[in-house]
Amino acid sequence: MQGGVVEAQEKGKARAAPARPAARDLLLQAASEVMSERQTIDVPLSDIAARAEVNVALVSYYFGGKDGLLLALAKRDAATALGELDRLLSLNISPEEKLRRHLAGVIKTFFRYPYLYRLLAALMRDASDETARDIAQFFAQPLARAAQGLMEAGIANGSIRPLDPQLFYIAALGACEQIFANRAILKFVHGIEEIDETLQRRYAEVVLETLMRGYLAPQGD
Amino acid sequence: MQGGVVEAQEKGKARAAPARPAARDLLLQAASEVMSERQTIDVPLSDIAARAEVNVALVSYYFGGKDGLLLALAKRDAATALGELDRLLSLNISPEEKLRRHLAGVIKTFFRYPYLYRLLAALMRDASDETARDIAQFFAQPLARAAQGLMEAGIANGSIRPLDPQLFYIAALGACEQIFANRAILKFVHGIEEIDETLQRRYAEVVLETLMRGYLAPQGD
Repeated sequence: MQGGVVEAQEKGKARAAPARPAARDLLLQAASEVMSERQTIDVPLSDIAARAEVNVALVSYYFGGKDGLLLALAKRDAATALGELDRLLSLNISPEEKLRRHLAGVIKTFFRYPYLYRLLAALMRDASDETARDIAQFFAQPLARAAQGLMEAGIANGSIRPLDPQLFYIAALGACEQIFANRAILKFVHGIEEIDETLQRRYAEVVLETLMRGYLAPQGD
Repeated sequence: MQGGVVEAQEKGKARAAPARPAARDLLLQAASEVMSERQTIDVPLSDIAARAEVNVALVSYYFGGKDGLLLALAKRDAATALGELDRLLSLNISPEEKLRRHLAGVIKTFFRYPYLYRLLAALMRDASDETARDIAQFFAQPLARAAQGLMEAGIANGSIRPLDPQLFYIAALGACEQIFANRAILKFVHGIEEIDETLQRRYAEVVLETLMRGYLAPQGD
């Protein structure tokens, strides 16, 4: 990390051609901030460049264009989430507790990066098959693999019911993501304009209780 | 229903200006078929009109354009699903069993109309706030209201755990829809190219078992 040097260079120079790592990171951070603030991923590149205080031409230079910038941002955020998953997997706790914390972490990640769900959906939808495969492999694949391992360990030690791990995980991710997936339904059906910290926590509780114990009341007590 | 008269008229006349109800329904059915077969909602209007054997200009006449046709198709399919929900609600079975069958019905609906998930998502995403509100109100609202009633009845009689019905239903719908939401993840992560009847049934079983009883194995037996 040569951040100090780069920053010193930038302060002394015109912003149009800063040293490589800083401008790239500034653009990613600016994209993240502007998309979070405006609650949309449709933001002009010029606004992102202005926030980053770098020349808009650097987007082409570093990312090859807007799609490349968006993909790099998804990868940056995914890397953070995957790092947290790695730390979680190394803890000395039961598989079912790891699974619970992992799913809570998925909800927290989409809350922390309010544009991330739409960004991934848009990239998977509009991008080439290659980009879709790329995202699936760098992000969805490691998650699915970790969850599968946890399910299998829990099934083996009798703490988790013998459900199909692959299908369970698809369903579990759907439950975690849904509140972030459709703002119009949230607004027009449930009267919720914004997902704040309190709602995020309440939602995580309901999702995790449902996934762990289900909605049926225990019988015979 | 004046279907017989209309069909008789159509057989005798050029297809360019058939009587109103038939051409409208033919276009909806053609759109449904073509989108199902091609596994995409991006189909040219000319192909839909050709399948319906009507003049493409009738799309503007009946629907005001492609968006109107797609919205009308979503409404047609939603009406079928809502009709089934009405019949289900009138049955003399417990609230938790109604909830289970309703959620199974949601999965079946998305399987039966393979384009419906994407169509609703695209309409909610790209359309005006008015269209999004319209869809939320004619489709999502009645579902959410029915589910809320079932949850409350089940909580009252002790068969359903006291979870927040609104948040539970958001999560439950997410679980039901997820396998239909992202074909790229299905393909590149799970190696699944197509959702067939068998997979749809297995997925419904896992989703419903998870939502009803959770993934945790029962303790102490």
